[in-house]
Parts: sequence; C-alpha cells; structure tokens
Amino acid sequence: MPDRLGPRFAEPMFGKLTIIGFGLIGSSIARAARARNAAGAIVACDHSDEARARIGQLNLADEIHALPEKAVAGADLVILCTPVGACGAIAEAIGPHLQSGAIVSDVGSVKGAVVSACASHIPARAHFIPAHPVAGTEQSGPDAGFATLFLNRWCIVTPPEGADVDAVEKLAAFWRALGSNVEFMTPAHHDLVLAITSHVPHLIAYNIVGTADDLEQVTESEVIKFSAGGFRDFTRIAASDPTMWRDVFLNNKDAVLEILGRFTEDLSALQRMIRWGDGEGLFKLFTRTRAIRRSIIESGQESPAPNFGRNAKADE
Amino acid sequence: MPDRLGPRFAEPMFGKLTIIGFGLIGSSIARAARARNAAGAIVACDHSDEARARIGQLNLADEIHALPEKAVAGADLVILCTPVGACGAIAEAIGPHLQSGAIVSDVGSVKGAVVSACASHIPARAHFIPAHPVAGTEQSGPDAGFATLFLNRWCIVTPPEGADVDAVEKLAAFWRALGSNVEFMTPAHHDLVLAITSHVPHLIAYNIVGTADDLEQVTESEVIKFSAGGFRDFTRIAASDPTMWRDVFLNNKDAVLEILGRFTEDLSALQRMIRWGDGEGLFKLFTRTRAIRRSIIESGQESPAPNFGRNAKADE
Repeated sequence: MPDRLGPRFAEPMFGKLTIIGFGLIGSSIARAARARNAAGAIVACDHSDEARARIGQLNLADEIHALPEKAVAGADLVILCTPVGACGAIAEAIGPHLQSGAIVSDVGSVKGAVVSACASHIPARAHFIPAHPVAGTEQSGPDAGFATLFLNRWCIVTPPEGADVDAVEKLAAFWRALGSNVEFMTPAHHDLVLAITSHVPHLIAYNIVGTADDLEQVTESEVIKFSAGGFRDFTRIAASDPTMWRDVFLNNKDAVLEILGRFTEDLSALQRMIRWGDGEGLFKLFTRTRAIRRSIIESGQESPAPNFGRNAKADE
Repeated sequence: MPDRLGPRFAEPMFGKLTIIGFGLIGSSIARAARARNAAGAIVACDHSDEARARIGQLNLADEIHALPEKAVAGADLVILCTPVGACGAIAEAIGPHLQSGAIVSDVGSVKGAVVSACASHIPARAHFIPAHPVAGTEQSGPDAGFATLFLNRWCIVTPPEGADVDAVEKLAAFWRALGSNVEFMTPAHHDLVLAITSHVPHLIAYNIVGTADDLEQVTESEVIKFSAGGFRDFTRIAASDPTMWRDVFLNNKDAVLEILGRFTEDLSALQRMIRWGDGEGLFKLFTRTRAIRRSIIESGQESPAPNFGRNAKADE
C-alpha cells in the first residue's frame, strides 16, 4: 500500500479546477491536486471572509472568490465541497456560468438528495457526476486540510444514468491521482452503505455524549476525568462539524432511519441479555465483532496500533 | 502534566507484590512497579500456560505461579487483575493464605459486585480495598502491557466502610507512584460513573458492529472498505476482550440498564428530529457535544491531534 502521493504529472489533468467550499475536504483536494500537478490552476471559493483570508495567507489557490458564479468561469472541473444542504443553491447559481464540457462534481456524504437538488440546474453542455471521498478528520476549516487525506481511502462515484463515459473516467482518474481507490455505485446504494459505516455511528456518538451531558447523578467533571474508559473515542466523532452533520441527517433520512431501526432492535436484544444474565449470548457477539476489526486492519483502512491508549507506548 | 514516570524509589513501597491475572493491566502494573522500584519482588500468577511462558520469556516477574493460593504467600500487596467474574473464587482461594497486614485490591471495571463477591472471603487480618485504574487499550495479554499505561490516568479507589486508613493511603500512594491520579468513591457511584463513561459506550460499539455484520443489503466487504467514515472507531472499542466485557455487563446490570434507558430515550428523540426534519434541534445537540470534547482535551485525557485521520498528517 503506497505511503505517499505519486510523482507530479508532466501535464496537468485539468486546466482549471474550481473548489467551492474550502474547508477540510476542499483544502485537502487543493493541496493534493497541487502536489501532483493535477490542475493547471486552482480557484478557491468560500463565502466566509475569514476562510478566504486564510486561503490567501496559506497560498492554497491561484484565485480566490466569494461568489460561486464568478469562481466557475473557465473551469474544467468544479467540485462542490460545502455541506450537502448548500449544494442545490450553488448548482443553481453556477449553472448558467459553466463552460461547455465542464465536469461538476461534489464530495457530499449523501448522494440521492444531492443529485435531486443539483441535477436539474446543470445545463446539458456540462457533466454532472457526483462523488464522495470517504475520508476526513473531526477538524474543520482550510487549516485542517492535508495533501494525503485521500491516500488509500475510497472515493465512491455515482454517475447518473447516461452519464458521459469519458467524463466519468476523467473524474475517476482525478481521484486516483489524489491517492484514492475508486468504486462506482448507485446513489441509493451509496446512501445505505454510508448510513451504516458513517451516519448512524456519528448519530449514536452524538447521542451518547448528549446523554452523558444530561446526567444529574454524574457530574461533567467526572465524565471528563474518566473518559479514558471508552467515552473519549465517541467525543472525537461527536466533535465533527455540526452544519455538515445536520445536513447529512436531513438529507439521508430514509437510509438513516432504516439502519437506526435495526440498531435499536439489536440493542434491545442486548439489553435483554444483560437483564436476564445471558453471558453466553454476550460473549458470542463480543467475539464476532473482533473478527471485523481484523479485516479492517488487514484491508489497510486502520492501523493495529493500540490507539485506545493514544500511542502512549511511544512515550515509554 | 508529566510525560514519564518518576524516578526509582530508594526503598520499595511494598516488599512483595503479587499480581493475579497477568494480562494488559496486570503486566502493565508489573512493568510500572519495576520501573519505579515500587515493589521489592513481583510475583506473577496466571492460569494460562501460554501466559506464564510469556511472562518468563519477557522476564516480567521474580516468581511465576499457576495457583493463586501459592502466589500470595508472604505478599504485602495482592492485586487481582482477572475479569471481574473470576474475583470471588480467587478471593475464596487466597483468603486462608494471606499474611497478616496484607492489602488485597483489584482493578475491576465494576466495584459493587466485586465487593459483594470478595469481601467475606478476605480474613480480618488483611485489608480489602478495591480499586479501578481507568486506563487500557483494546489489546490483551502479557505482551500488550506497558509501563506508562497509567500515567496521567485516574485510579478510582472504593474503600469499604471502616477500612484501615493507613492501608488505603498506602494503596493510593502505590497508584500515584505508577503515574495515576487517585479519586475516592463509593462502589455504587463508581459503577454509575463507569456505566456512562465506559460500559454503555462499549455496549453500543459492540452493537453497531453487530448490526453492520448482519445487514443483507450491504456486504461485509463494503463495510470494511468504507469504514473510514466513522465506523472504524467503533470497531476498535468492539475489539476489546470478550470475557472481560461479558463479566462487566453481567456484574453492573443495574447501572448499565439505567444509563441504557436514558441513551435509548435520547436516541428516540434524535430519531424523531430526523424524521420530522428538525434541523435546529440536531444542530443544537451537535454543537453542544463539541464543548465536551474540548474539556476532555484540556484536562489531558485526550490529544487534540486529528486522530480520526489516523495521524495521516505525519506521513505528509
């Protein structure tokens, strides 16, 4: 498995790349694309004055804009990197300003709703090909990005029916250039896969942190002191960007409710095992879950280092 | 906050330290006690032939025994480091062999049930003082331990009513020598605090991994590939020792069911917000949970590094 990005291309894959929404993901795309010379010029667009100022200070782009409709002029590839709730309005704003042959993509954690919100606004002369790089950290903003964020991670591309084959392949090649493996899916299947691998895990992490915060019998100071027992791991996930996650849940309602229903059923069964003292049932589940982790480590999606101890061994 | 253990004591705090159950926690205590000269001699006891062989190869103890009743002869401090379900039988076995003035303690994640199971077996000439170092990793066995596991972590001591003050202070001093901060609580309060900071988080992690494994519409290979979206973090916790965790849930039933009830109520409320599209309610919760994480980082119980990305930045 490669541990770094490939060498610079002699010729950039795209002339002009416009990134709309320049946070963790957007700024990581810019850094990786620059490192590989995947775009001749990078145009950054962000509605926040503060973000635009930082992009300038960090020298992450060749042009910086506040308005999406200005930022897409002459762009060969446009990637929407805003929370998914904002994509529809941006697609509407940029539609008339896209040049012929431009590819418009996104990075949203939800695909069905994004496709519905955007597709009608992208004119026939451009190609709308949604995608989702499954990578991230719990941090936000242009400073949080880094060039290797997508290395060895999967990018799911969900081309609409009848999408231009060359445009799809060009987008896939771009993500591979950033270090990703590419997989193709329908938007509906993507949304179900992400509901179980990402959305519901985030929801239950947010939920347990909220439950802890509300307890009267256990003080907040106790929760914090003794968080090394496992709770700490949930707070990391529950520190992710609130706007992004609000939009995910509002836009992937059906799949999230479906998976949540199963989660709750399973939890009721576990609760019953505890109440009735079914040690064998508990042991059986706790053993089965170990095997999945081994597979995740073997597939290169996780390190086997005892991270629960926060790399304490290194300090020894 | 110290980043290493203190210097070696000129005189050991205890003459002979016996550790029964020599896994992650037991072997870490041995390593830390040796590093600080906190015990003149270390006696290891484990029922597994394989573990005893490893303890010998790693040279972690001065004596190695299979039987607890042999291992406690002449011990000044005995610490039970087995899964909590085994503590009662071990206390019964060692009771008659304890020397006068010996301190008997444990490291169990549950206190109420351990006290009930053990207290009557410890003779009046010895001091039974339960404790729980809130530290660990998802790994198990004598190889998994390390000397700094307890550094800057909290150790909760739950002395029974009427416990000998000097013995309690001696045990607390031992844990401080291993790098821990010490806090005193009743067993019942300990069990409630741990239910929210450790037991229920583990339970829901085990549960979501099980739910994912059972889905027919999403393949195991998809769950593994796309686990970087958040699921991965749960599999780490759900890889913890199955026997230990079975015993925790069987022995802390009341507090776990109480916290689980609240968790489920809160999750139903969240589910309802999603179903009815209450974006404001979701945003409010997701913002509140960020503050708790900040407090945990400020308290030194967590690093602010973007660990969700598995230290990828270091590879850049």
